[in-house]
Amino acid sequence: ARITLLPGDGIGPEIVAQAKRVIDTVAEKYGHQFDTPSCPMGGNAIDDFGDPLPPQTLETCQNSQAILLGAVGGPKWDDPTAKTRPEAGLLKIRKELGLFANLRPIKPYSELLDASPLKHEIIEGTDILFFRELTGGIYFGDSGRMEAPDGEKAYSVMTYTTSEIARIVRLAAESARNRGGKLTSVDKANVLEVSRLWRQVAADVVKNEFPDIEYEVVLVDAMAMHLISRPSDFDVVVTGNMFGDILTDEGSMLPGSLGLLPSASLGSDGPGLYEPIHGSAPDIAGKGIANPLATILATAMLLRHSLDLETEATAVEDAVARVLAAGHRTADIAAGGKSVSTSEMGDFVI
Amino acid sequence: ARITLLPGDGIGPEIVAQAKRVIDTVAEKYGHQFDTPSCPMGGNAIDDFGDPLPPQTLETCQNSQAILLGAVGGPKWDDPTAKTRPEAGLLKIRKELGLFANLRPIKPYSELLDASPLKHEIIEGTDILFFRELTGGIYFGDSGRMEAPDGEKAYSVMTYTTSEIARIVRLAAESARNRGGKLTSVDKANVLEVSRLWRQVAADVVKNEFPDIEYEVVLVDAMAMHLISRPSDFDVVVTGNMFGDILTDEGSMLPGSLGLLPSASLGSDGPGLYEPIHGSAPDIAGKGIANPLATILATAMLLRHSLDLETEATAVEDAVARVLAAGHRTADIAAGGKSVSTSEMGDFVI
Ligand SMILES: CC(C)[C@H](C(=O)O)[C@@H](O)C(=O)O
Ligand SMILES: CC(C)[C@H](C(=O)O)[C@@H](O)C(=O)O
Repeated sequence: ARITLLPGDGIGPEIVAQAKRVIDTVAEKYGHQFDTPSCPMGGNAIDDFGDPLPPQTLETCQNSQAILLGAVGGPKWDDPTAKTRPEAGLLKIRKELGLFANLRPIKPYSELLDASPLKHEIIEGTDILFFRELTGGIYFGDSGRMEAPDGEKAYSVMTYTTSEIARIVRLAAESARNRGGKLTSVDKANVLEVSRLWRQVAADVVKNEFPDIEYEVVLVDAMAMHLISRPSDFDVVVTGNMFGDILTDEGSMLPGSLGLLPSASLGSDGPGLYEPIHGSAPDIAGKGIANPLATILATAMLLRHSLDLETEATAVEDAVARVLAAGHRTADIAAGGKSVSTSEMGDFVI
Repeated sequence: ARITLLPGDGIGPEIVAQAKRVIDTVAEKYGHQFDTPSCPMGGNAIDDFGDPLPPQTLETCQNSQAILLGAVGGPKWDDPTAKTRPEAGLLKIRKELGLFANLRPIKPYSELLDASPLKHEIIEGTDILFFRELTGGIYFGDSGRMEAPDGEKAYSVMTYTTSEIARIVRLAAESARNRGGKLTSVDKANVLEVSRLWRQVAADVVKNEFPDIEYEVVLVDAMAMHLISRPSDFDVVVTGNMFGDILTDEGSMLPGSLGLLPSASLGSDGPGLYEPIHGSAPDIAGKGIANPLATILATAMLLRHSLDLETEATAVEDAVARVLAAGHRTADIAAGGKSVSTSEMGDFVI
């Protein structure tokens, strides 16, 4: 199988290097053959090719079973008036590969509960799987500017269609059925027409196809509250692109260890894309201290969802859990205590 | 001066009744004359007049110096296919009165720090004043539905103009100058065209008119994280309608005592509207146990911002602080301990 690597910018190359070692180890231990080409994407690709997602990179991705991304972006490419930006590459690869479902698990490790900004009794027991719609909504709608009497007027259009809503809700509901049996759909149906369609379609899908799961709807503003006050009440949460962007990032703070959270972006067929949820951390790039565990856990998701290698995926996750239980910490999760380097952490997992 | 009361639904009438007693006490003590008509709005107005904001209510509001709102809504009026809803009344009064700036202070009382879901060392020192744009953005943009090959397509348009952005940023920047001297503008300029205009206009206003304040921009997803991990780093935060809706509600969880948070909605002239940020709590309506303090604190904001009665406003705020310091608690903030009723809490403040 081909697993295309997109190391990206900042700490991306360092953490993907450790994940690659894990992939090689899995191949050796379990007798697989993985082809792992590495392609430019993000700021580095803008520098070298004037394009955050060069055609050659996209083509290699399209001809893969799965893609592992490090992180893209950095202050160097942050100019809002620039012709193109690293983020454009991300949005484009999602769209081109039809990656409409972004899965973000939020489950703290018990050894690291103290790292949470939330009180112990509130964060304890939290185990949420977010499904964020990733190729529709306002991030992909029509947008522009026009003259206005007082200067300019800018607009961005949020849209959703019945089928865009149905397919992500279906995926989330299936997952709920295999997990805790509860699905929460988040919208702003008391104000937005788009959300009213979302609520209607979601209810239909659940009623017709998943009458066995527990189902609730929550307004996005209320959900932003519940995530802090009672995160352990949720199981699978499904929502649109922008609400999902905000809520999954809010949720990612709950465990208090951003360096441990992976994410998967899936389409209906074709390769899935896997990545840590943290950014490219330019401030610590090249120092060999970045935490590779989120990328390694993203690799486990990759083995499971795109290569159907459940045993191998679980082996990787177990290895990470044991390494943490043994007390090994990179600087970001060491709470001031003893820490290991990026590659040492890779060694321990391997 | 005329202060129009809009008790609304659920616990609204009970909590506004206590605020009214506080207003009467202020009038007596400081020698003012307040005219305080009470008008229907929300679900009760739908029931009685088929309109959540009857013309007569709007007219009375327009002829006032300030408006005090309890809360609107409840399961009775929640049907998404209903012809009109309580929320429509809220949106309409904001628009009709030009209430473009929603101010939401987030500052926990030290006696109640333990109620916060956040760890003590994280919530401590938090003192944020949000400015949410309230009459523009996607909540007021064009919206609709059309046939799509697979069913329907719905759309909602987010727009902002130069002047809409400039006036709210200006208000927020002025407030920052009088507080901690720091302003944070929140947008999603890495993806949305509307946000790029927002960022540009905000930077211009600050550079030209407020060169003395500290200024930063933060992406909405990152802000959703920072609010949990380092809330005490912020002073004044300004953002658009939808981002503000989500972030202020997230922020309102931080003190752990929703029943204590007021909000003010201001225009460039005309009456301001003041309300507690909590909802109508239909489950406890009529039981006499609702917490009136947020509404009383909203009254203090009303005295300050719309009637220019700083001494009176401070007196009310001090009274609330002393009542809390003396250990009086309504059930919502009693943490299982001894609690007082809605009207007893009113007595103590008075
Ligand atoms: C960089 C940006 C386009 C992206 C998004 O908002 O989708 C990021 O925030 C994410 O969540 O992956
Ligand atoms: C009820 C709704 C229209 C309103 C809003 O989103 O503006 C509410 O959530 C608020 O924040 O005041």
